[in-house]
Amino acid sequence: MAEKELKFKLDKKPIKLRQFWSRLWSLIVPSRQQIIYVLVLVVAYEIFKFVGPYLLKRIIDLITSFKPEYINDILIFIALILVFDLVVALIDYFADKAIFKILTEVEKYLSVNAQTKMVRLGLSYHERENTGNKIFKIQRGIDKIIDLLGNSFWEVGPTIVQVILTALIMFFVDWRFGLIFALFVPLFAWLTAKLNLEIAPLRKYRHDQYEAAAGKMAQTIININTVKSFVQEDREIKEFGKIKQATKQVALGVA
Amino acid sequence: MAEKELKFKLDKKPIKLRQFWSRLWSLIVPSRQQIIYVLVLVVAYEIFKFVGPYLLKRIIDLITSFKPEYINDILIFIALILVFDLVVALIDYFADKAIFKILTEVEKYLSVNAQTKMVRLGLSYHERENTGNKIFKIQRGIDKIIDLLGNSFWEVGPTIVQVILTALIMFFVDWRFGLIFALFVPLFAWLTAKLNLEIAPLRKYRHDQYEAAAGKMAQTIININTVKSFVQEDREIKEFGKIKQATKQVALGVA
Repeated sequence: MAEKELKFKLDKKPIKLRQFWSRLWSLIVPSRQQIIYVLVLVVAYEIFKFVGPYLLKRIIDLITSFKPEYINDILIFIALILVFDLVVALIDYFADKAIFKILTEVEKYLSVNAQTKMVRLGLSYHERENTGNKIFKIQRGIDKIIDLLGNSFWEVGPTIVQVILTALIMFFVDWRFGLIFALFVPLFAWLTAKLNLEIAPLRKYRHDQYEAAAGKMAQTIININTVKSFVQEDREIKEFGKIKQATKQVALGVA
Repeated sequence: MAEKELKFKLDKKPIKLRQFWSRLWSLIVPSRQQIIYVLVLVVAYEIFKFVGPYLLKRIIDLITSFKPEYINDILIFIALILVFDLVVALIDYFADKAIFKILTEVEKYLSVNAQTKMVRLGLSYHERENTGNKIFKIQRGIDKIIDLLGNSFWEVGPTIVQVILTALIMFFVDWRFGLIFALFVPLFAWLTAKLNLEIAPLRKYRHDQYEAAAGKMAQTIININTVKSFVQEDREIKEFGKIKQATKQVALGVA
């Protein structure tokens, strides 16, 4: 596909990120408290995870300059390592439990809210917007929000906390390490943001095509009686294939 | 929800895993060659990733027992590390490119095949099975297959190759390390399989409920005219909420 043609088709503004997050935050009102609770657990988890290695360092220090009177301290440190391992495992357990609870609850009330909203909308809106197609967008949207929340709690959140804690510790150990960190992390963040800005329109186009394809499929199947009566099977398949072909080209244009 | 009631509802056989994989393999016929190509790249990637650290070890060995005539060897090893880093980066690039190609192509032909199959099916089947609801299952199924393939190529595949390679290297370094590995990996695999067997029926129930909910939502919106005419909005919302409530309870029963 020619470069120019692609640009023309993708002339859409990227989603404003700040707006997206504030909207998401207002969508998940009922889970806010639980989310804050999980974030506290994640921070605690990451902090306590540093205690074990630190104690191990102390033990090694004591062993390298060994004197008989150290043996008590070493045993205490070993016991503390076990205790903190247990604490970390417990925090992990409660965090996972809370995360599962949030995810299932968000799944439920987002679906119910969307259904309620759709049913309450006026007939004229339904006729104008062909809301049948929107159902796929709603379903996929909820799936994506669940994915996003799961990833935030299990991957992104812990990583961010870890990066910040590591940076702090490095500053204490040696400010030069900290400086390297402080220089490169913003660079990576900036690169990621820049890349996202470039890719976002392509992604948006792709997801619009997904919706169009799902709508097409639904239309064909719901009106299968008419399609078969007029022997339009091949035409329906061909049209669906065209949408999918366009999606594929845009997707591979990125990749 | 009482334990007994849950058991009763979930009295379903888990999916046979072997059957699932052979079916998936026959679904993705057009991508087989590319998948094998990606697997070769993944293996190559993981093998070459071991070269760098090994060369570093050799350099450290040479430096610790330093003699002036070693300096040439050390420089060659440093050059080799850079070369192999480049090779690893290149393999990674080509593997990612091939994976994106596979994913977009699978997305395309699975959708088109499903649509073709649906359109070709007899009218009686469509009337009997209420195929409108199946569209959500098809959409979600394709999404999940794409996720599965992506995870296999990016996470599971490399991890398995890495575990095998690490086990082999450990056997060479010290057979006792290898023995520990050989004992614990099957244990973890067995535990995972056992847990999966227990959770599978719950998951199956949950996904059936997703389908039912999506179908309900579609039915309500497509027949919104009738719903509004008979002022059945509250009933529709309530029924939808019930399905979602059941889903949530089963999901939290697991978590």
